[in-house]
Amino acid sequence: MESRLSLSSRSSISNYSQHSKRNGSLSQNGDSDPGSLGRHLIIELYECDPKAVGDVQRVENTMTHAAKAIHAKIVDVVFHSFNPQGISGVVVIAESHLAIHTWPEYHYAAVDIFTCGRSIDPWKAYPVLKREFKAKRMKAMELKRGVLKA
Amino acid sequence: MESRLSLSSRSSISNYSQHSKRNGSLSQNGDSDPGSLGRHLIIELYECDPKAVGDVQRVENTMTHAAKAIHAKIVDVVFHSFNPQGISGVVVIAESHLAIHTWPEYHYAAVDIFTCGRSIDPWKAYPVLKREFKAKRMKAMELKRGVLKA
Repeated sequence: MESRLSLSSRSSISNYSQHSKRNGSLSQNGDSDPGSLGRHLIIELYECDPKAVGDVQRVENTMTHAAKAIHAKIVDVVFHSFNPQGISGVVVIAESHLAIHTWPEYHYAAVDIFTCGRSIDPWKAYPVLKREFKAKRMKAMELKRGVLKA
Repeated sequence: MESRLSLSSRSSISNYSQHSKRNGSLSQNGDSDPGSLGRHLIIELYECDPKAVGDVQRVENTMTHAAKAIHAKIVDVVFHSFNPQGISGVVVIAESHLAIHTWPEYHYAAVDIFTCGRSIDPWKAYPVLKREFKAKRMKAMELKRGVLKA
């Protein structure tokens, strides 16, 4: 967690940048606010290919690809599939984590990408998720985590 | 993930309830919106006991206690400590996950509690976190995840 020494007090948990594209195209966020310990992307993927979000190996592969796309160091990978369907998985990275929960029956996946460190841009995972899950509609927002007082 | 069949279209990702108590007392959320697949609590714990958020076994114990407090079924537990300090951990539950990242040097911990299923109230984990980490200041908000169209 390399950004731990670069701090100042700026925004609060309720200040976020929201990105929404009905066609699912990438909405790149250039805001790398140095005032928080972590950056947390909340990503909603709708109208996905149910096979892509319903196969545990495909989901795990996509999430590890996403971790590599942001140049994160993978520490641990945990994925589970549920009955009758649905997958939960977490990629623990040295810079925090990526998590996913899928509802193939609704063609939906919820993804979180939590990173620390100035060198990492979590938004670089966004096109990987769109492409691999074939999401036709995506929403995402970024939360600042760990906003310390000045 | 037992709530997968109870859906309607209501709020969006940007609609959330925010709870903030400078003294860290519990702000209970009675909103169990049936219009979303998941509930996601974003919790910021400031002014924690650095020993409580710096010891990997204590952090793991607290997070598993939090999972039990919301009556979740624990599927997997993954915790790592980093050099020189800091802990990352995830408790995968049948109803989604709990995650934590701590910065003991700043007496800070970031916690996420993502649940699905109407029978689970994720806010019941809140007092466990406050008590075990001895947080003097906490902020939390709830996001609705997976808001499907009508």
